[in-house]
Amino acid sequence: MIPASIIATKRDGHELTEKEIEFMVFGYAKGEIPDYQMSALAMAIYLRGMVEREVLALTMAMVGSGDSLRRIGDTFRVDKHSTGGLGDKTSLIVGPLLACLGYHVPMISGRGLGITGGTLDKLEAIPGYRTNLSEAEIDAQLERIGCVITGATEAIAPADRKLYALRDVTATVPSIPLITASIMSKKIAESLDALVLDVKYGSGSFQQNLQIARRLRDQLQRVGHSAGIKTTALLTDMTQPLGKMIGNACEVIESIEVLQGRGPHSVRLLSIELAARLVLSFSPNSNLEQTRAKLTELLDGGAPMEKFEAMVANQGGKLPSEFSLEKCRPIASPRSGLLTGLDCQKIGYSVIAMGGGRKMKEDVINPRVGIRWECPLGSVVTAGQTVAQVYCDSETMFQEASRLLLDSLRFDSGSTDAIPPLWRD
Amino acid sequence: MIPASIIATKRDGHELTEKEIEFMVFGYAKGEIPDYQMSALAMAIYLRGMVEREVLALTMAMVGSGDSLRRIGDTFRVDKHSTGGLGDKTSLIVGPLLACLGYHVPMISGRGLGITGGTLDKLEAIPGYRTNLSEAEIDAQLERIGCVITGATEAIAPADRKLYALRDVTATVPSIPLITASIMSKKIAESLDALVLDVKYGSGSFQQNLQIARRLRDQLQRVGHSAGIKTTALLTDMTQPLGKMIGNACEVIESIEVLQGRGPHSVRLLSIELAARLVLSFSPNSNLEQTRAKLTELLDGGAPMEKFEAMVANQGGKLPSEFSLEKCRPIASPRSGLLTGLDCQKIGYSVIAMGGGRKMKEDVINPRVGIRWECPLGSVVTAGQTVAQVYCDSETMFQEASRLLLDSLRFDSGSTDAIPPLWRD
Repeated sequence: MIPASIIATKRDGHELTEKEIEFMVFGYAKGEIPDYQMSALAMAIYLRGMVEREVLALTMAMVGSGDSLRRIGDTFRVDKHSTGGLGDKTSLIVGPLLACLGYHVPMISGRGLGITGGTLDKLEAIPGYRTNLSEAEIDAQLERIGCVITGATEAIAPADRKLYALRDVTATVPSIPLITASIMSKKIAESLDALVLDVKYGSGSFQQNLQIARRLRDQLQRVGHSAGIKTTALLTDMTQPLGKMIGNACEVIESIEVLQGRGPHSVRLLSIELAARLVLSFSPNSNLEQTRAKLTELLDGGAPMEKFEAMVANQGGKLPSEFSLEKCRPIASPRSGLLTGLDCQKIGYSVIAMGGGRKMKEDVINPRVGIRWECPLGSVVTAGQTVAQVYCDSETMFQEASRLLLDSLRFDSGSTDAIPPLWRD
Repeated sequence: MIPASIIATKRDGHELTEKEIEFMVFGYAKGEIPDYQMSALAMAIYLRGMVEREVLALTMAMVGSGDSLRRIGDTFRVDKHSTGGLGDKTSLIVGPLLACLGYHVPMISGRGLGITGGTLDKLEAIPGYRTNLSEAEIDAQLERIGCVITGATEAIAPADRKLYALRDVTATVPSIPLITASIMSKKIAESLDALVLDVKYGSGSFQQNLQIARRLRDQLQRVGHSAGIKTTALLTDMTQPLGKMIGNACEVIESIEVLQGRGPHSVRLLSIELAARLVLSFSPNSNLEQTRAKLTELLDGGAPMEKFEAMVANQGGKLPSEFSLEKCRPIASPRSGLLTGLDCQKIGYSVIAMGGGRKMKEDVINPRVGIRWECPLGSVVTAGQTVAQVYCDSETMFQEASRLLLDSLRFDSGSTDAIPPLWRD
């Protein structure tokens, strides 16, 4: 097979065969297909799309480029995955919550990309927390605790790891076929029985458009089902940050609040909903309302917090009695009005500007910077009122972050849109 | 500027600024932009296109990535360029013919790509002919003889040389903006006053579609005019090979026949027409018919043949009294009928199959293989009649070439289309 003629087939809008897709993906993982051919193919896929059959073949080729995790006995294996949103820290809550139900939760997570934080970056705000467990360590922790949150090992979907890095620098990230293959290859390699997906839309996610988010949700679900995984999904609102806390240590703090039965309603409700949807995928006839109630009781009872502590300790982390954050300063609203909109991209970039996210792949993150967002959509704000608290020691960075945060506010825009629901089916 | 965001702009169908195009092209020439970003951009350009202003900026950035040839005195500098067609050897005739009119003809040519032969490969069928002249050697030969046919020096449009090789392996060759920038950057770097373009269409060229060939012609002309070059163009028919001879030594033989006042009418007429159009671009009010007549007289008088001999000798070549070709065998028609169509791609691949063209960039060409095509479109053929003579020593290669040649024939297809004119305005 000739790589250029496979690229030409997709360039001209035709379908690729399973063999052609495997040839490119396996060849790329082995270093036989160079980056420049893969990036041309990725751009052709971005612009021409892929049909169902091709997306499944691409996903399975990514899985087949490496190893899958071993199942341990016959315990059900489950996971939750989010497409990424501003302030979205529910993985830290849902993982331990599901483990308390007796499932194994082998959660392989990623780093921050663009304005959305990464679960691994957040957990590394806990001193000593290791995100590079071996497969043997993952197995041992699942048996002992039931829940692991770690990075992909070298052997998990190596083609995806290479392609993910390439897409980031060749403007081929927001493509439904490529996103689907990337997400689902890692989840399929976890050897799951069930998966709940949190598909984000709105300015705080990479997908502004609800219709496109819906298409991504459908594509992810179909590939999950084809791979034999019970896959449920929610479309969730990212027109404002999830919860109040944004930034790495900030988000761990808020997650612990929720695990202690406190914290913002939005984070608490969404975490319970995601867990409930997963539970129901095993017993579709059960009652959603009752499942939510049971999970709420479980969360408030403290067992998930103990599970979280056990997981952190087993991965080498030491939870401090209090997380140290940078110096806290308020941002005051320049005017009075009804807050009708937020540009969450600007809020996200303000965190990156303070060093809480990466501009370049090599950047080291400062986990102690962040934002406490005080002003939900629909708030009536008075001039001088604090809209956010900013944690940042550097004066220059604080100024840039302030400017971005004030720019993100939209008052009285004439829009009478209701605030979107936290989630949609 | 961030390469990925420039790629994203084109990916989303927006226009790039001159600065963005220069940033990518200069960066690529200097090795600061990697192949994988350039190939993603090339695919985005392929699928999204470019407006006039962008194509000009891309072309001028390619020119600016290297040096331009020096003008010598105030002698007009002219050239002829073809987009490439099966059996198209007119450069070998038009170059010397124009030099006989007192113009300087600094013809920078290329190698074969796909089924279309390359002028440099053809000339290298002449023992000793050098295609790697330095700029000083080009200047000296222009002053002495007026005509040079050589490859691009390292310093001419280095960004184009790199991108051309990359496009070949990333399925981004047949794109009007990319073809235009590639062709015109090298022509602009020749510091020309006038240029005549031979834009091919039909199965013997890379462009089957007349409408698209017309768009390419218009684009090439507009960029030429914007760069201050009098640019004329013909659309010429490639639904059958040009002339009878195909293959490297074969085409030099036929070119010499034409330079001696003999040879097939098609090659002779097209060569004279291209030269006439170029001459008229300096004096648009002159009479085309009279210009053709003068050029025909000039060609038949033998001066262009002397010019060709002088050029070959000055570039180290020794014209043999007779070119040695491989063993000649006839291909017989399997049936009787009216020949109404030819798949020139198959004829071209038969030459590649015999080693007369390249499958891979590193392949060494055998100049002595080739075809003498005996059977123009519209011929009434009898079963057993010779349709082509094949020059090839290898039995295996001969068999493969025979199969391809017989496959290329279309008899009595029901089409009553007239044979297309040799050229169109």
